[in-house]
Amino acid sequence: MSRPPSSLDPLLRPTSVAVIGASRRRGTIGAEVFLNLIKVGFPGAIYPVNPGATVVQSVRAYASVELIPDPVDLAVLVVPAEQVLDAVESCGRKGVRALVVISAGFGETGPAGRALQEQLVRRVRELGLRMVGPNCLGVVNADPSVNLHATFAPTWPPFGNVAFSSQSGALGLAILDHARQLGVGISQFVSVGNAADVSAVDLIADWEHDPATRVILLYLESLGDPRRLLPLARRVARHKPIVVVKSGRTAAGARAASSHTGSLAGADVAVDALLGRAGILRTDTIEELFDVAMLLANQPVPRGRRVAILTNAGGPGIMASDACESRGLEVVPLQSATEAALAGFLPPEASVHNPVDMIASASAASYEQALALLLDDPGVDAVLVIFVTPIVTDPADVAAAIVRAGRRRTEAGRAPKTVVTCLMGTHGVPAALLSLREGRFPSYRFPEAAARALSVAARHGVWLNEPEGEIPELTGIEAAASTPLRQVGAPRWITPEEVEALMRAYGVPCPRTRVARSAEEAAAAAIALGGRVAVKLLSSSLVHKSDVGGVRLGVEGSGAAAAWCDIAARLTELGHRDGMEGVTVSEMVPSGVELLVGATVDPVYGPMVAFGIGGVQVELWKDLVFRLAPLRDVDAAAMLDGIRARALLDGFRGSPPVNRAALQDLLLRVSRMMMDHPELVELDLNPVIALPDGKLVVVDARVRVG
Amino acid sequence: MSRPPSSLDPLLRPTSVAVIGASRRRGTIGAEVFLNLIKVGFPGAIYPVNPGATVVQSVRAYASVELIPDPVDLAVLVVPAEQVLDAVESCGRKGVRALVVISAGFGETGPAGRALQEQLVRRVRELGLRMVGPNCLGVVNADPSVNLHATFAPTWPPFGNVAFSSQSGALGLAILDHARQLGVGISQFVSVGNAADVSAVDLIADWEHDPATRVILLYLESLGDPRRLLPLARRVARHKPIVVVKSGRTAAGARAASSHTGSLAGADVAVDALLGRAGILRTDTIEELFDVAMLLANQPVPRGRRVAILTNAGGPGIMASDACESRGLEVVPLQSATEAALAGFLPPEASVHNPVDMIASASAASYEQALALLLDDPGVDAVLVIFVTPIVTDPADVAAAIVRAGRRRTEAGRAPKTVVTCLMGTHGVPAALLSLREGRFPSYRFPEAAARALSVAARHGVWLNEPEGEIPELTGIEAAASTPLRQVGAPRWITPEEVEALMRAYGVPCPRTRVARSAEEAAAAAIALGGRVAVKLLSSSLVHKSDVGGVRLGVEGSGAAAAWCDIAARLTELGHRDGMEGVTVSEMVPSGVELLVGATVDPVYGPMVAFGIGGVQVELWKDLVFRLAPLRDVDAAAMLDGIRARALLDGFRGSPPVNRAALQDLLLRVSRMMMDHPELVELDLNPVIALPDGKLVVVDARVRVG
Repeated sequence: MSRPPSSLDPLLRPTSVAVIGASRRRGTIGAEVFLNLIKVGFPGAIYPVNPGATVVQSVRAYASVELIPDPVDLAVLVVPAEQVLDAVESCGRKGVRALVVISAGFGETGPAGRALQEQLVRRVRELGLRMVGPNCLGVVNADPSVNLHATFAPTWPPFGNVAFSSQSGALGLAILDHARQLGVGISQFVSVGNAADVSAVDLIADWEHDPATRVILLYLESLGDPRRLLPLARRVARHKPIVVVKSGRTAAGARAASSHTGSLAGADVAVDALLGRAGILRTDTIEELFDVAMLLANQPVPRGRRVAILTNAGGPGIMASDACESRGLEVVPLQSATEAALAGFLPPEASVHNPVDMIASASAASYEQALALLLDDPGVDAVLVIFVTPIVTDPADVAAAIVRAGRRRTEAGRAPKTVVTCLMGTHGVPAALLSLREGRFPSYRFPEAAARALSVAARHGVWLNEPEGEIPELTGIEAAASTPLRQVGAPRWITPEEVEALMRAYGVPCPRTRVARSAEEAAAAAIALGGRVAVKLLSSSLVHKSDVGGVRLGVEGSGAAAAWCDIAARLTELGHRDGMEGVTVSEMVPSGVELLVGATVDPVYGPMVAFGIGGVQVELWKDLVFRLAPLRDVDAAAMLDGIRARALLDGFRGSPPVNRAALQDLLLRVSRMMMDHPELVELDLNPVIALPDGKLVVVDARVRVG
Repeated sequence: MSRPPSSLDPLLRPTSVAVIGASRRRGTIGAEVFLNLIKVGFPGAIYPVNPGATVVQSVRAYASVELIPDPVDLAVLVVPAEQVLDAVESCGRKGVRALVVISAGFGETGPAGRALQEQLVRRVRELGLRMVGPNCLGVVNADPSVNLHATFAPTWPPFGNVAFSSQSGALGLAILDHARQLGVGISQFVSVGNAADVSAVDLIADWEHDPATRVILLYLESLGDPRRLLPLARRVARHKPIVVVKSGRTAAGARAASSHTGSLAGADVAVDALLGRAGILRTDTIEELFDVAMLLANQPVPRGRRVAILTNAGGPGIMASDACESRGLEVVPLQSATEAALAGFLPPEASVHNPVDMIASASAASYEQALALLLDDPGVDAVLVIFVTPIVTDPADVAAAIVRAGRRRTEAGRAPKTVVTCLMGTHGVPAALLSLREGRFPSYRFPEAAARALSVAARHGVWLNEPEGEIPELTGIEAAASTPLRQVGAPRWITPEEVEALMRAYGVPCPRTRVARSAEEAAAAAIALGGRVAVKLLSSSLVHKSDVGGVRLGVEGSGAAAAWCDIAARLTELGHRDGMEGVTVSEMVPSGVELLVGATVDPVYGPMVAFGIGGVQVELWKDLVFRLAPLRDVDAAAMLDGIRARALLDGFRGSPPVNRAALQDLLLRVSRMMMDHPELVELDLNPVIALPDGKLVVVDARVRVG
């Protein structure tokens, strides 16, 4: 594979390196970074820079980077923060192309550090350099043709196809060590530190074309610019899975919001919406991240969720089955031909149904034969192989049999399927594992971890097979109608008249509504509308109208005046009479299924559209799904299936099913509205009534601009 | 500690052992069991029994156990299944007191094996023996005064205070190995196999008084007799935590049930109800089981959920904080005195708020000082200490500092608090860990595992502090009124008249109800009741009345005849007219909060009472909690807080709060009803209306007997 040039080449693939601040004293960062660089066999020269020493760790040192007689690609800075800017100037004059700033004391320390960091970034950009850090652990490129170990970590990982970017240097140390212990090979490791210049997004862009990298792992505390991340990740994840641990879930804190949608959209909802859209897999823990990486680095992505389990002991088979099903995998029935073939050579006490239990007498040959059969079953996407050592069978033989069965299928020219293994409780696992590792079969200590990793990989397989979807053209949108909204000043809930105009402009179905500022006006409005009407409190301060007795339904004609008086009296009683600005009078909507469609704007990720169960129950069940705008057709469809109470849409307890097409159309219209109007910050359509005749009506719409 | 004699003494603490089927051939179970017994230093004699050899593994062998010239406490059987009964007869004649039957080929293989197993158990009991197995891995007692290794597992675990019972021998192998690698010391390990005689319950009873055992771990596929387990576990768990992995969650399968309550009570609900009541902690995986055991074996149980986090790096601190909060722990604010004391010696860049981040420059001395301060904060129940190696601080020093801080507190005479540690990513962790291990501080590789283990331990602490509760006396129960129900024959839904009588007998508030078998009877009933009534379909086959248009509300007087005709017409339309047996006519109940109280009977665990959101929404949200009957007062109170939609009880959206006392009383009455009437198998009170005036009314009650 040829690789296009990357602006990160001098950082990740330098031909010469200077260590500014290289130290004579072992145990200091300046010494350890220098020695790490020297000892792993970097093919170019490593130059120590130290104004106070002529020799560092037995290598001729230079008082300044400018005094080095040869060209320098990369400078690693381990000097105190206050000397960093001077060092950068030297690097600029020397023609250095990239920096790794390990030094701490910048943005992470407070306002003074932040100012220093801003100055640093400005100079780095002016000089045309790229920079990792500051406040980082450094950079590793384990490719044997590069052998760059520009960190102070004691661990040099085995070379492999997993690239890792960590926003925490501290975790980076633990991660390199963990990778080594699991035998997960690393192509590159970058501790981005404060990510003042190079961020995870830059790295994904580079690794897209790095032939050594097959899987990308990220530890993130913040996601960076979603407008760059989203299209890039969507493209890269089609070929190289991206798996992330994103911390700071609960620390997100409450966002000030007064709409239902806004108050129920925690910051993590936006993160999940972005990651899901980008095709990035998320795991809860670092351990799970590596379990998933072990699978994706070695095995094909499963095409779907259908799993066969092969075991020689019942208990672990049950555990695996439970773990698979509780994580969304399907332990599917096997084809009868597969079961018959298994029955042909397994003893009568064995179970040929999935999970297939060959019982303790199973030999390595039975493993090979059974695994080959399961892989050939067209209803199976992946096989989880469990082996518990009885005395009679050697785990190394079983490992070899697994490798042979996998190879057999590939050699027969059939597409490889995913195999994960769990060789349990053998004293000799390490030897057995070696053969599995050479055959590229990941092995887990217990069945649950295998099932968990498989479920994440299967999610990726499902994502890969999903249609791309598109943002469909919508009919009946009056483009010009949006103009008035652009003229708003301070943040406010817009008036019912404005809401109605906006909804009509976007073809959102609303009942006819009038605003009344007195009892007489209310009666007049009801008479003008004709038939039964709903009279509702109009207030910009009292948000939950029904909680304060602000809703009167089924009122007729001049009865609206009495409804006005009722509402006013109730508010007086509650001490909220001042909050009443009037009432709205609108056509009554027949009863139906009450839903919510909403939108909110995340300060980082932009507008998101929400869908869920509506009415007063929203806050009781909090059953909402969020997706980033603009919605594609596939998003709108998936949202309907994403709520817990989805049974309500399919004709629950005798009511007719909801018109899904109309509902998806409404979601797409709201998405379009949010994209067209950056001034919209919150929107609640609640309830949206899905009528038995298939129509939708938005009974109450609230829109905030800011 | 003195220990009372136990019937398991000859099994777990024998003074001499015969191996029946001891083999000369290495690699066979018969040879490995014998060699294991010999090589760990068992203080008594181990006798090989083999009719075909005079010497086995260099030890004089006997043709039969009866020919051994000395007394034999325990016989380990490794002969083929068909020879086991003969061997048992020999053991009986010899006066052997206990058996470990490793041989497979019994209940696990099918009907013939089951018959053989029944025969075996009968003889074992007739001969007054105790037996572990058949089909098991064997028994380990690692107490140096016993040193019994009667298994064919290659691993001899380090001695410690954790006892383990496994229902899967295969897992047992993995478990012994895992325990060894984690350094979790084992007191005893028993693979119960088919548990034909000795079960986990017998072992808990023995381990209650075993001075070497402090924590009890169980791997279960079935729970055994709940009537024995429940009182035993409740008592033992007060002193020795019991932690279980119970597999077979999803395999449980659907139970035939036609009530709401029954259909929503999966088998796992009953298991959780039993374990919760028994004070047994449940974990999802074996790895988590050991993570929890590491904590409980070494540290005091946390008194509550309030956690302080101490770290020298931000990222891992955030991860720990997230993991704690997502698992129900509270990362609490520290007292201002604690923060001030921390600020006194930490650098200004450090964060003295929880999580306390001492930044990378933290020394071992800062760890000691900060940990001591956090332990002394009265608002803190447990401390999670994270250390990431920067180059400047040696992990071994930090480990020693942690040990010192813990010791300091104990020496000051203050109650020890829980400390868990996470020393991340150090190359030298093993050495550092050793000092922690000696100080009895568990250490985890990543913060999430530490938080997870801590959350389970904290759950135990909360359970320990809960009041015991009692089954209160209930007033107004007419004991005699239950008689008619006892005379039922085939399973059936009882009639509305019977339901009403039953409810009145137990003081359950129901509206007055009459049954009508014709339109004329319906009108007469409505007139007799007076006021507005509800007319509802009476049918033993059509369960969901409102789905088939079988409910008419607010009918007056002779209007009930029209309601009858409406219902009949609707059923005719649906082709269900045959299912109409009549209607019930009952007083109308005003609207209020709709709840469900129900009961179901688990075939193994007995009656369970359910509480949740009622009305037609039950199946949409499945928001029910279950507890085993008889309910204590504390159970009834906890059930109200156990549902997701608990906000509905506290005066949701302007409605008055539900009368909790009345609701608890109703739950206790239903519990009593289920205990009094073993013939009741399903019961749905749905909806139970909680009226604004604090009264409860059961609008619809369905009861099935069988």
